[in-house]
Amino acid sequence: MIRAGILGVTGYAGIELLRLLLNHPKVEVTTLVSGSTAGEKISNIYPHLKGICDIVLEELNVEAIAKKCDVVFTSLPHGASDMVIGNLYNAGLKVIDLSGDYRYDDVKVYEQWYKTTHKNPELLKQSVYGLCELYRDQIKSARLIGNPGCYTTTSILGAVPLLKGGYVSTENIIVDAKSGVTGAGRGIHLDYHFSECTENMKAYKIATHRHTSEIEQEYSKLAGKEVLISFTPHLVPMKRGIYSTIYMNLTGDYTDEELLEVYRKFYEGCPFIRIYDAGKIPESNHVAGSNYVDIGLTVDKRLKRVVVVSALDNLCKGAAGQAVQNLNLLFGLPETTGLLNPGFYL
Amino acid sequence: MIRAGILGVTGYAGIELLRLLLNHPKVEVTTLVSGSTAGEKISNIYPHLKGICDIVLEELNVEAIAKKCDVVFTSLPHGASDMVIGNLYNAGLKVIDLSGDYRYDDVKVYEQWYKTTHKNPELLKQSVYGLCELYRDQIKSARLIGNPGCYTTTSILGAVPLLKGGYVSTENIIVDAKSGVTGAGRGIHLDYHFSECTENMKAYKIATHRHTSEIEQEYSKLAGKEVLISFTPHLVPMKRGIYSTIYMNLTGDYTDEELLEVYRKFYEGCPFIRIYDAGKIPESNHVAGSNYVDIGLTVDKRLKRVVVVSALDNLCKGAAGQAVQNLNLLFGLPETTGLLNPGFYL
Amino acid sequence: MIRAGILGVTGYAGIELLRLLLNHPKVEVTTLVSGSTAGEKISNIYPHLKGICDIVLEELNVEAIAKKCDVVFTSLPHGASDMVIGNLYNAGLKVIDLSGDYRYDDVKVYEQWYKTTHKNPELLKQSVYGLCELYRDQIKSARLIGNPGCYTTTSILGAVPLLKGGYVSTENIIVDAKSGVTGAGRGIHLDYHFSECTENMKAYKIATHRHTSEIEQEYSKLAGKEVLISFTPHLVPMKRGIYSTIYMNLTGDYTDEELLEVYRKFYEGCPFIRIYDAGKIPESNHVAGSNYVDIGLTVDKRLKRVVVVSALDNLCKGAAGQAVQNLNLLFGLPETTGLLNPGFYL
Amino acid sequence: MIRAGILGVTGYAGIELLRLLLNHPKVEVTTLVSGSTAGEKISNIYPHLKGICDIVLEELNVEAIAKKCDVVFTSLPHGASDMVIGNLYNAGLKVIDLSGDYRYDDVKVYEQWYKTTHKNPELLKQSVYGLCELYRDQIKSARLIGNPGCYTTTSILGAVPLLKGGYVSTENIIVDAKSGVTGAGRGIHLDYHFSECTENMKAYKIATHRHTSEIEQEYSKLAGKEVLISFTPHLVPMKRGIYSTIYMNLTGDYTDEELLEVYRKFYEGCPFIRIYDAGKIPESNHVAGSNYVDIGLTVDKRLKRVVVVSALDNLCKGAAGQAVQNLNLLFGLPETTGLLNPGFYL
Repeated sequence: MIRAGILGVTGYAGIELLRLLLNHPKVEVTTLVSGSTAGEKISNIYPHLKGICDIVLEELNVEAIAKKCDVVFTSLPHGASDMVIGNLYNAGLKVIDLSGDYRYDDVKVYEQWYKTTHKNPELLKQSVYGLCELYRDQIKSARLIGNPGCYTTTSILGAVPLLKGGYVSTENIIVDAKSGVTGAGRGIHLDYHFSECTENMKAYKIATHRHTSEIEQEYSKLAGKEVLISFTPHLVPMKRGIYSTIYMNLTGDYTDEELLEVYRKFYEGCPFIRIYDAGKIPESNHVAGSNYVDIGLTVDKRLKRVVVVSALDNLCKGAAGQAVQNLNLLFGLPETTGLLNPGFYL
Repeated sequence: MIRAGILGVTGYAGIELLRLLLNHPKVEVTTLVSGSTAGEKISNIYPHLKGICDIVLEELNVEAIAKKCDVVFTSLPHGASDMVIGNLYNAGLKVIDLSGDYRYDDVKVYEQWYKTTHKNPELLKQSVYGLCELYRDQIKSARLIGNPGCYTTTSILGAVPLLKGGYVSTENIIVDAKSGVTGAGRGIHLDYHFSECTENMKAYKIATHRHTSEIEQEYSKLAGKEVLISFTPHLVPMKRGIYSTIYMNLTGDYTDEELLEVYRKFYEGCPFIRIYDAGKIPESNHVAGSNYVDIGLTVDKRLKRVVVVSALDNLCKGAAGQAVQNLNLLFGLPETTGLLNPGFYL
Repeated sequence: MIRAGILGVTGYAGIELLRLLLNHPKVEVTTLVSGSTAGEKISNIYPHLKGICDIVLEELNVEAIAKKCDVVFTSLPHGASDMVIGNLYNAGLKVIDLSGDYRYDDVKVYEQWYKTTHKNPELLKQSVYGLCELYRDQIKSARLIGNPGCYTTTSILGAVPLLKGGYVSTENIIVDAKSGVTGAGRGIHLDYHFSECTENMKAYKIATHRHTSEIEQEYSKLAGKEVLISFTPHLVPMKRGIYSTIYMNLTGDYTDEELLEVYRKFYEGCPFIRIYDAGKIPESNHVAGSNYVDIGLTVDKRLKRVVVVSALDNLCKGAAGQAVQNLNLLFGLPETTGLLNPGFYL
Repeated sequence: MIRAGILGVTGYAGIELLRLLLNHPKVEVTTLVSGSTAGEKISNIYPHLKGICDIVLEELNVEAIAKKCDVVFTSLPHGASDMVIGNLYNAGLKVIDLSGDYRYDDVKVYEQWYKTTHKNPELLKQSVYGLCELYRDQIKSARLIGNPGCYTTTSILGAVPLLKGGYVSTENIIVDAKSGVTGAGRGIHLDYHFSECTENMKAYKIATHRHTSEIEQEYSKLAGKEVLISFTPHLVPMKRGIYSTIYMNLTGDYTDEELLEVYRKFYEGCPFIRIYDAGKIPESNHVAGSNYVDIGLTVDKRLKRVVVVSALDNLCKGAAGQAVQNLNLLFGLPETTGLLNPGFYL
């Protein structure tokens, strides 16, 4: 059994990770760390776990973790885990970091968008961007994974087959994305108060959201030239889901079916990518609770433009599920191990 | 007192119209028509009206209506009201039609997007497009109003100041719109079943939604040249609200403040348009239950693009409220009469 | 015009009060007080009010208020307004207090359930319990009103006709009540975080909720003997609404119709009480946004028991609407002035 | 592997059953029957299953089923499965019926509450009531299971320890129950339309709901005398969950802790029953998506009454999960096989 620990388990990504790992046939969760609630049972904080997982939360202690774990998931705010991760890494552990700290090829891009100084740029060079569908082989031999963000995963996977194949222009790409409220995390704030949030929606951080840079990094790499995009996140009144509507101008007269075939080929061997038939459009509850990314598209012939819809669950494929998928690759397991549940739907 | 009737009052737009007219100081509702439930009290069908409005629903009878009404609102599916409206019009009544039938300058555009033959193209020529902020003067002297749709009102008002002023290119305009579920009406369908709809969102009718043609008609008129757009409607799990995120490429280096000033000038004297300060973004519950349209914007300097957000209540300014605003103009009342309530928010 | 002020306007009851007063034809709002946000426009905090009400919030200053107001609504936590109210009262103002401080006949009951010492027991004796349907005449000549709570209003009005008439036993009365989340106020707390609250429900404060004592006070008074009840509040995932299901054992073999007639007679002349026909059951959205209380009942012959359902809007008839109804009585206006809007429903 | 079939799989209980069986290590789903959509893939109707389960739906054919299945779940409206079940049973299959048809000891009670004639009273005598916590041993040796309803499971399990032990009176028992909307099934109706259902709640079928008789049957059996109860179902705006608040008069002066100990002892060896510590109250999202029943209680000393709260997921422990638990017992597997996932919470 692979022995796993979670740092920051009481956050929403952390608790989703625990849900998935408890169902994973090859993983044993040995260590749950939470600075603020150390000493309590996790099931006191999340009572749905009573009788299923009653592990006592611990203070952070790298030495202790190194003895009890083969892999550690760090689910902490960006910056917070910088030093910790170095220590865990140096202690010989495999580390999957869910923050933005280890996702960038160029530390300057990180520093510019996160408006901070990276504390461990050397280690950043050792990390692999954990988007399994693009970097499967590199992940297999890595020890430190920068697990991609939720908006980024849906936006990248929804567009790169066309960018890489040159089917679309690199100009005038618009990503209009919508997120469920768990994406804002468990921190309390009036904006996420039920009475303010239900029956309400809004755009936020227009043209300034950090995930923009992560998307652009991958779009550029796959397109083979610099790509800049408009990315607009919106908050919608539901718990789970990222839904990206992506607008790209076509470089030729392609049909729905031709473009769908590009996606099918690109994602051959990718068990979590589901390409919809022409005329079908994904919905967010098709992926809620599961690790799938559902992609559909419509060509607008009048405008020579394609509209791609890409949906995933922000807590699962957008965070914890992707992290488990990375774990599977890191440890040579089939990529789908522990991740083939059908999701919630209802 | 102006004597008013509503055809199709049991639909969601119809019942919102009734809500507004009951609070209108210059209107008396004399006639409620509903084919399917004639003979019943409206308060049996909508029990929240018990004791407030217990009018008995009538069968359609143009002669009877002509005697009891000065103005009639027709809130029926498109096509359904074609002949009725002709008869009401010929009987000397003022008519405000909430369907798509009387919104078009060119009957061919209507017929192409609605895939039907217009039954009264002559009458169409008499009608005025009831978007008060653009056609206030024409409305005042009209007798037949084609009341604009919900998606169209938010999309048109959100963009035309920049189109008219030449601040943006007419190419590459994207309107990504989100609607609450009341926009789908009261007809029952599995798609709008609570258990399917809550905690779920989806795009639909990509590149084919009828409102596209209505938006393009007005964009083109204001820009002075043909404008074609990508318009993508989405359904989000809340009752009320249309939220349009509009992407347009700038023709020059404008700041947020410069563009906001263009909006403020364009909408001078328009009591229901609220332009947000730079850095502020509208939310859908700022307009829920009221007749306001809230508009904010952000310039993305990196891309020389502006992202405009335009929000309104689909049942109110997007249907019934706008219809009442039209009534006010038709009868020479102040435009805001009966429409200055603060909305719901909570 | 009656000049009114609101203390604590930024809370949910306060902002609902403002919504109602802005629509009131005989009231002018002159003063909005908020300690924490004095100096800001109310429309900065609640942007739906932009252009409708842009009054600047003030610090508390009793002298200034006394000059600008004829009546003041105090919407503050219990205890907080004790001294303030004394000063306002002594300055000659009429005061309608929305907290629990001035609702009790017996200061000891208050002190026992609120676990505090009442700071102004003399003034408490001057106050009248503002449940208009029961104390209309006393209210008319009062200067200080203790405005009843939301749970209490629905529970009291739903049961007292049968208690007073002796149709039910005073033993074994159960009030099982459900509240929307605005009832918890605008204070942020993890329990009211959208992601914790949506798709979730729970009971709380079983057998210990303060409103129990307020209900018992009125039940006892109307029954003419001490009545003790089980009262269980629940939180359900919606914004507005109190829904009380009340179980009482019958003292005789009564039919639905006989008991409904008791209610109709008891509430004769009460414009906001709607008694449902036999076989009809209120729903919470029948009263959302309005000042109505909807009451229905079913006799269970097998058990010689009646189940009464009583619904209202916690922010409106359960707080702000009732306060406006009290204002109308205090100033000799028709009880329904400014309160006859049809509510939200959608 | 146990070969299983589901009749009526496209309903909500049916699709939840499929979700659970797909995760069950000892079950292979071989047959999905749906009269109305035979010939289609289940994943066309429920797209979240695409790639996970693409079984083609079949017409009902008892012979074919008998060859491909060891056990069949019938998830059809009551009455609909009467004859089918007889045929499946006679073909030698084990049958777990999710309707009300095979839950009663006395056919007359069924016929009275369901207002119909039972078509197979002889077979009813062979059936066992599938409430595992009460009838574990009988279930193990049965071939036909009447799987209990959702309201009934929560209400029965929440009260029988006290009834059996004589801790409470059999008079004046009140069960006030609240259900999520999936409990109303997938059939479309205006009442369950999103726009009517969200932000709304209501009681329904007061004193006449069929589950009353099923609860009374078990209460009476455990108490050793006839028990009649008030049972009031409510609909609340969330997808999953049954939440029963049960009021019972105590026969002595018991503390919270004493009564909780009665529950702990009664449910010893019942892996899905979680008894809360004194002072803790279950919430519906503690059990959403899992097979657990969470029970808490508060003694009201003033009234010598206990208020018990019992929560479960209507689709899981209230239908499909319980059915799988029955399957485990029928086939000699550990009761928890395939059912130990942590639920959804978020």
